[in-house]
Amino acid sequence: MGKKIVIVGGVAAGPKAACRVKRILPDADVTVIDQDNLISYGGCGIPYYVSGDVADEKELRSTSFHMLRDEFFFAKAKGVKTLTSTRALMIDRGRKTVLVEDLPSGKQNEISYDTLLLATGSRPVILPIPGNEADGVFTISDLHKAVAIKERLARGEVGKAVVIGGGAIGIEMAEALTDLWGIETAIVEYMDQLLPRIIDWPLAAILEKHLRDHNVEIYLGEAAEEIVVTDGRAVAVRTGKRTLDADLVIMAAGVRPRSELAREAGLLVSERGGIIVNSRMQTSDPNIFAAGDCVEIPHLVSGKGFVAPFGSMANKEGRVAADNMAGIPSTFKGGVGSFILKAFELSIGSVGLSLETARAEGFEAEFSLSSPSDRAHFYPGQDIVCLELIFDRKTRKVLGLQGTGPMNDALSARIDAAAVAISSGATIDDFGNIEMAYSPPFSTAIDPINAAAYIADNLCAGRMRQIGMEDFFAWMAEPSIHPDWQVVDVRHAKQAAPFVERFGSGLWASLPYEQVRDRYRELSTEKTLIVFCNAGSRSFEIQVFLDYAGLKNNLVLPGGFNVIRRIGADWLPVS
Amino acid sequence: MGKKIVIVGGVAAGPKAACRVKRILPDADVTVIDQDNLISYGGCGIPYYVSGDVADEKELRSTSFHMLRDEFFFAKAKGVKTLTSTRALMIDRGRKTVLVEDLPSGKQNEISYDTLLLATGSRPVILPIPGNEADGVFTISDLHKAVAIKERLARGEVGKAVVIGGGAIGIEMAEALTDLWGIETAIVEYMDQLLPRIIDWPLAAILEKHLRDHNVEIYLGEAAEEIVVTDGRAVAVRTGKRTLDADLVIMAAGVRPRSELAREAGLLVSERGGIIVNSRMQTSDPNIFAAGDCVEIPHLVSGKGFVAPFGSMANKEGRVAADNMAGIPSTFKGGVGSFILKAFELSIGSVGLSLETARAEGFEAEFSLSSPSDRAHFYPGQDIVCLELIFDRKTRKVLGLQGTGPMNDALSARIDAAAVAISSGATIDDFGNIEMAYSPPFSTAIDPINAAAYIADNLCAGRMRQIGMEDFFAWMAEPSIHPDWQVVDVRHAKQAAPFVERFGSGLWASLPYEQVRDRYRELSTEKTLIVFCNAGSRSFEIQVFLDYAGLKNNLVLPGGFNVIRRIGADWLPVS
Repeated sequence: MGKKIVIVGGVAAGPKAACRVKRILPDADVTVIDQDNLISYGGCGIPYYVSGDVADEKELRSTSFHMLRDEFFFAKAKGVKTLTSTRALMIDRGRKTVLVEDLPSGKQNEISYDTLLLATGSRPVILPIPGNEADGVFTISDLHKAVAIKERLARGEVGKAVVIGGGAIGIEMAEALTDLWGIETAIVEYMDQLLPRIIDWPLAAILEKHLRDHNVEIYLGEAAEEIVVTDGRAVAVRTGKRTLDADLVIMAAGVRPRSELAREAGLLVSERGGIIVNSRMQTSDPNIFAAGDCVEIPHLVSGKGFVAPFGSMANKEGRVAADNMAGIPSTFKGGVGSFILKAFELSIGSVGLSLETARAEGFEAEFSLSSPSDRAHFYPGQDIVCLELIFDRKTRKVLGLQGTGPMNDALSARIDAAAVAISSGATIDDFGNIEMAYSPPFSTAIDPINAAAYIADNLCAGRMRQIGMEDFFAWMAEPSIHPDWQVVDVRHAKQAAPFVERFGSGLWASLPYEQVRDRYRELSTEKTLIVFCNAGSRSFEIQVFLDYAGLKNNLVLPGGFNVIRRIGADWLPVS
Repeated sequence: MGKKIVIVGGVAAGPKAACRVKRILPDADVTVIDQDNLISYGGCGIPYYVSGDVADEKELRSTSFHMLRDEFFFAKAKGVKTLTSTRALMIDRGRKTVLVEDLPSGKQNEISYDTLLLATGSRPVILPIPGNEADGVFTISDLHKAVAIKERLARGEVGKAVVIGGGAIGIEMAEALTDLWGIETAIVEYMDQLLPRIIDWPLAAILEKHLRDHNVEIYLGEAAEEIVVTDGRAVAVRTGKRTLDADLVIMAAGVRPRSELAREAGLLVSERGGIIVNSRMQTSDPNIFAAGDCVEIPHLVSGKGFVAPFGSMANKEGRVAADNMAGIPSTFKGGVGSFILKAFELSIGSVGLSLETARAEGFEAEFSLSSPSDRAHFYPGQDIVCLELIFDRKTRKVLGLQGTGPMNDALSARIDAAAVAISSGATIDDFGNIEMAYSPPFSTAIDPINAAAYIADNLCAGRMRQIGMEDFFAWMAEPSIHPDWQVVDVRHAKQAAPFVERFGSGLWASLPYEQVRDRYRELSTEKTLIVFCNAGSRSFEIQVFLDYAGLKNNLVLPGGFNVIRRIGADWLPVS
């Protein structure tokens, strides 16, 4: 036998690295240790297992050719030894050993390594609130919990559920509970929007409406303060504002790297708890590598470290770690946080920094919001995507892209293309020329990603001036805060009519797009004109013309009615 | 009025540039000239109009907000003058004038310009064969022809059709005729595969089978030598091998830039007929710009010039031309030929160079062929994509990506991401780390694009050795050409059984993947073993092990059975 390689962690990065090492060094002695008895599973599939889309948990730990990835499989097919139900207790870096405990027997022994890989993953945050350990409170952290949840659902024990946390897992679980099981589900989120820090308000608001339309209750800006327990069993979640009945509580308040083993061994660990690695995935001990949810990687936009707990990243990092453990100098440069989520019939995704985050990071960040068709507008089945491009005014670098779309791959295609571009430091000019493959059944001649960049270019050049969607909503909710604002609705007169009727032409004027050049003199020269259309593009054209005509006191509402109706508001006329 | 800008061509690049110029220089005097009376239409939508997916040709020349883009629209909404049914006859560069003819009246007059844009587009190749002008012979070049074709279909005058040319338009038209109208349609292609030079054989063969399965007849390697005419009307197409009855003949043999106007004015025009422009879209006359199908642009992989007749490129080029005409120094760096096509339930796409083209261009080109799932293999509705990554062994640069997939956006998403990466000179290592957004309903933890790069990496490192799909098919068709070859089918024994039964275990041996480590000594040490599985990944693992075990005379069949069954063959056992 050759080099002795020990890997702690058997879910994603660990097995990936183990198998890759064996393919490079077939004579290596590779051992994977995991405290669980179930290993090498697709944790991201848990919500789909709970929902019933995936019938059996075994499917989450099977190969695409339907073999169960268990100890037998790793031994027979991969030549990798696995020690399951075995916990790594301590690393002795001097002697290059790991002290492990066989959990069923409690027996401890030492395993020696030439090279060690830590793929210890992450653990869900358990909020330090009363009742957090009651029966019926679950995190989504492993297959056993998933099975336990599904069993409760199948037994009909759950009528109401509360999900604590409006991040990706919380939303996926809310869909799983509501959609197939018909459970009354509420999401409680401490921040004042869903997917905080990942996406900005307009898109979060679209998601929120979509979830509400699918009978998910949403409570934002409310902390879960207590899980009310009766006879040891969770019966409700109390926030500062209300008490929500719950037979089942899903705690989905984020994850933290599992890095105690590394820290206790004296390896460098970041403030966020991520194990520090170089681009070869090597920790501060050259004989110890780390990969997956437990490490911190460079964010290619912010330049700072971040933790990217995605199975996809774990696989990439695990492969690079394996290469280096086997003597191949591969590198992993970092990530841009590519993210995609299904929520009922909506897809929502992002990459790079949100506007809010970019500004907090000190960028001179600005946004372009648009709502184009996902494929040729004349092609059957086309739908609208809402895209926000975040860019730096000073450097013209694109900092992020986020959006919502129908439940197909149109949005993820744009996120993916943007991820490649952002990773290489692309500017808005580069984005304007991204060559998305065009054919009417797939895309538009001016692709949404190009159009978003064009808007950014116009904003940078000062040709376009806009107001934010939040400001518009705040004004519509309380028009008196800006008595000098007036909407100029350049859509077809019929589309504008219900708004003019509801708000009066002093607040909502109709002047169709193709008539502006003839009739612009009818517009107020006193008011700030908010130019309004379906997507924002006609509004921009009108802005350019009005500026030229001397009516410079005007602003475009980017994204327009397409975005507004997806966010919804009680002030909207019923159409 | 400000600067006088004249634009020749009113379909894609022309109108885009006209409107963009007006937004930058609202006081510019912009005139668009077109010899047609219908302008600003989505020519790529013609097959969908003919099929009936798009009911009215007006939809192809309407905005997303349902306004017809006619002369009135450009005048009223855009402030752009349009002279339709007006042909540009000659440019006088010294006097900066264009001589034009009003086609209905035959009247000629001169129009002066400060800056001129040539957006003259392309024209379809008309094969110089007898009968090419007969009634019933059409090219797909403008809306009038599309309307005329659809009228014939609607009148029930077409029972059989022949499409000359197996490129994108030919295939789209064949689908349109077959699918909705039920017309017996044949494609005649001069080269020995569909989409020649765009995709390589294995994927072209998948497309071919898919079309045949949808009742499109395909005749490859046959030139249309004559259109047989009776009473002035086309009745058949004669190739060197057969005569195909046809009430309708679609000539879809490619397009050529329309550059006579430029050439006659003394502007530089390439051998391929494309107008030569710099990165500002400026011709050899600094006052004359050009954009769209009529120009030659740099190919960012080959480094040579090419003509990219796509509406998407026309729009990008038109915008850059407009910027420069209006004093903004935008640049257009070139293209990578992103391409996507719907063919019934199949999507087929490519970007960069095909393997064949790359080798012809002198690259040390190699390919990785794979057939992974388009989303998590446990997620309902997942399907297989077949991907070929083309790369240079020496520089490790990715030269191209092509593939087939189900009729969703999964393939186009990979083509798009690859387009961005290839545009910036990405290597296979960069491709390995492309951060595609991952969630089971959208993608896989190891994305197909990453997996393709991993295979390329293994090929470059010599860890993987493969045979080409064409060589495998040639052998299976005639096993005696390689009597020393033997398939080792590492799939489940049940999957291998019909093959072993059909071919005998001397040619087709079954040894399941997970049993190889225990049973490899049963394998022949004399023969060349072709390791065979569904996708190629298990085969690679087995190859690594067999090499280690000393059985080095083995090759992987990349892509595996997933590709083979999509290509189809009469030697395949019926399953």
